[in-house]
Amino acid sequence: MARIPFATVQQVVAEAFIKAGMNEQDANTCSRIHTESSCDGIYSHGLNRVARFVDFLKRGWVDPDAKPSLVKKLGVIEIYDGNRGTGILNAFHATDRAMAIAAEQGVGIVTLRNTTHWMRGGTYGWYAADRGYVTISWTNTESCMPAWGGKNTRLGNNPFVMAVPRKKGHIVLDMAMSQYSYGKLQVTRLKGATLPFPGGFDKDGKLTSEPGPIEQSMRIMPMGYWKGSGFAILLDTLAAVLSEGLATNDIDKIQQGSCTGCSQVFIVIDPRQLGGEEFTDRVADGVADYVNSSTPDEHSSEVRYPGESVARTRKDHLANGIVVDDGVWAEVLALAGRSA
Amino acid sequence: MARIPFATVQQVVAEAFIKAGMNEQDANTCSRIHTESSCDGIYSHGLNRVARFVDFLKRGWVDPDAKPSLVKKLGVIEIYDGNRGTGILNAFHATDRAMAIAAEQGVGIVTLRNTTHWMRGGTYGWYAADRGYVTISWTNTESCMPAWGGKNTRLGNNPFVMAVPRKKGHIVLDMAMSQYSYGKLQVTRLKGATLPFPGGFDKDGKLTSEPGPIEQSMRIMPMGYWKGSGFAILLDTLAAVLSEGLATNDIDKIQQGSCTGCSQVFIVIDPRQLGGEEFTDRVADGVADYVNSSTPDEHSSEVRYPGESVARTRKDHLANGIVVDDGVWAEVLALAGRSA
Repeated sequence: MARIPFATVQQVVAEAFIKAGMNEQDANTCSRIHTESSCDGIYSHGLNRVARFVDFLKRGWVDPDAKPSLVKKLGVIEIYDGNRGTGILNAFHATDRAMAIAAEQGVGIVTLRNTTHWMRGGTYGWYAADRGYVTISWTNTESCMPAWGGKNTRLGNNPFVMAVPRKKGHIVLDMAMSQYSYGKLQVTRLKGATLPFPGGFDKDGKLTSEPGPIEQSMRIMPMGYWKGSGFAILLDTLAAVLSEGLATNDIDKIQQGSCTGCSQVFIVIDPRQLGGEEFTDRVADGVADYVNSSTPDEHSSEVRYPGESVARTRKDHLANGIVVDDGVWAEVLALAGRSA
Repeated sequence: MARIPFATVQQVVAEAFIKAGMNEQDANTCSRIHTESSCDGIYSHGLNRVARFVDFLKRGWVDPDAKPSLVKKLGVIEIYDGNRGTGILNAFHATDRAMAIAAEQGVGIVTLRNTTHWMRGGTYGWYAADRGYVTISWTNTESCMPAWGGKNTRLGNNPFVMAVPRKKGHIVLDMAMSQYSYGKLQVTRLKGATLPFPGGFDKDGKLTSEPGPIEQSMRIMPMGYWKGSGFAILLDTLAAVLSEGLATNDIDKIQQGSCTGCSQVFIVIDPRQLGGEEFTDRVADGVADYVNSSTPDEHSSEVRYPGESVARTRKDHLANGIVVDDGVWAEVLALAGRSA
C-alpha cells in the first residue's frame, strides 16, 4: 500500500486513457472520476477498474468518439442513445440534462439506452447533490446472479443510487442488488477469510459464507434473498421500458464485457423549488441525527447514515494521499507508459 | 379456515366501516381494498387489519371526513396534505392525480404529507398497472427497526412499490425494508416454527431465526443487512423532502398508531407515450420469461417474477372464495353487527 496525492493519480490515469485513444478533455473527465472513486474508498470502480476500461477501449467495446444522441423528448423526459460511447461521459450528459430540466420544471427524467459501464453509480448522485439536486438513478447490467429460487444467472447487479443534498454531508445510497460483489468475494478469498454473513450457495445448494465455492457456482445471493431478487427484476424492466432499450436478457446476448448495451435512468428533482434549501437541510439533518443517535450494538462503535463513511475516507485521502494497492498502481503506471 | 365469496367479504367489511362512521361510498372503496388484499393472499393488510382500522377511527386517529388539500403545484409535481384522512382514500387520490398528470405530460409525481396508513402498498401499483401506467411509490412509517449497527428502533419499514403493466400479468414489487414483518414473526412463533433465515438479533445481539426473542428485543433486521438499512434511510428522507412532510423521527413524536402523519411519494409514468404498449409488453415478457426459464434450485420447483404468485392466489380466491381465518372472520362479522 502507498499513499499517492489525488493530482498525481488523476494525471497518471489521464495519460493511460490518452494512450488508449481518448481525447485529452474526455480523458481528464474519466480520470477524475476513477480517481474520485478511489479517493472515496470505492477502489473496485476506481484505480482497480482502469486496466479493464483500457482493455474495452482496445477491443472496440467502448467507442471513445461516440456522443449520446437524443431519441425522444416528452415533457420533462428525454431519452438518449448512448451509442456505446464512454459510460462515464454518457452518464454525466444524462445527469446534466436532467439537472437542466429540473432547474426549469422541478424534475427532469433522462434515460440512456445502448450505453456502457458508468463505473461507480454513486458518482452521479454525489455530483447532483453537490449542485443541490435530489437523485434517483439506476442501471441494468448483464446477468451475474440467479433469481431467487433459481440456479443459473438471470439477474443483473443493477446498481441503484439515491442522493439527498445536505450542507453537513450529503446522504447518498449506492447499492448493487447482490449482497456481495464478486470483487468482495475475491478479496475475501485471497485473505483466507470468510464473509460476515452467507453470500450465496455452493454448487450443491448449500448456503455458505465461504467465498470460493460461490465464485465457482456463480450462485451469488441477492440482498435480502427474494427481496433483492424482485428489486433487481423491476429495476431491469423499468430501465429498459423507460429508455426504450435493452433488458438484461438482451444484454446477455451481446456478450461484450460488462454492461455493454445497458439501459440507465436518471430522475433528478430540485428541492429548492419545493420546501427549499433550509427545509431540505432540516429534514436531512433530522434523519441523519436520528440514525447517529442510535445506541451502537455489540459489534459497533457508532451508527452511520449512507454516505458518511465515504465522506470521511475522502477527507483523509485528500489530506494524506489516496491509499493505492502497489500492484494496481504499477499496472496503471505501465498503462500510462511510466515506470513504477 | 373457511372460503368466503369476494362479494360477501366486501359487503361485511363495508358494514363494519359504516358502523364505525364512514360514509357509504368511502366504506365501499375501503372495504374493496381490504377484500382485494385478502383475495391476493396479503392477509396482513386485508381482513386482519379491519379491526385495527376501526379502532383508529374510534380513537379519532383517522378522520373519515377529511379530504386531501393541494399544498403546491410545480409542473408535473403536486403536493397534497392528507389532513390525516383515510390513508387508502388519500393514496387513491394521489395515484389518480399522478395518472392524470402522466396522461397529459408523460409523468406525474404526487406526494402526500400528513396522511395515515395506506394499508397494502401494492394496491396502488396494481391499480395504476391495470390502467397501463408504470409506478414507483413508497411511504415512510413510524420506526420499528434499528439502523444497521444500532440497538434501538430508528427506521421505518417504509414499504416500496414498483409496477410495470403487462398483458400476461403485471410485474409488481411490494416490499418493506425489514427482512420479515412483525406479523410474520408472530405467525411463525404461534406455529412453533423458526424463520427460514435469520430475522434479527436477540437482546444480547445474537443473530437468530427464532421469532420470539426478536419480537422481545425489537431488533428486527433490515433486508440485506446494511443495504436495507441504507435504503430505508433514503426512502424516509426523500418522502419527507418531496412532500414537505414529516420523516420517521418526527412521526415517532406523534405516537398515534401506525403511520399517522406519514409522507408518501407516487411517481407514475405512461409508457404508451414512450416505447408504446407493444414495446412495453415485449420488454416485460422478455424479463418474466428469462426469470421463469431459470433452472429451479434444490429447494424450489419453479422460479417466479414479482407479482406472479399474487395473481395466482387471486385467481384461485375469485373462483373458489377467499380463504379466511375463522377467528378473524368472526371478529369482522361482529364489527359489522352480524352474528358469526
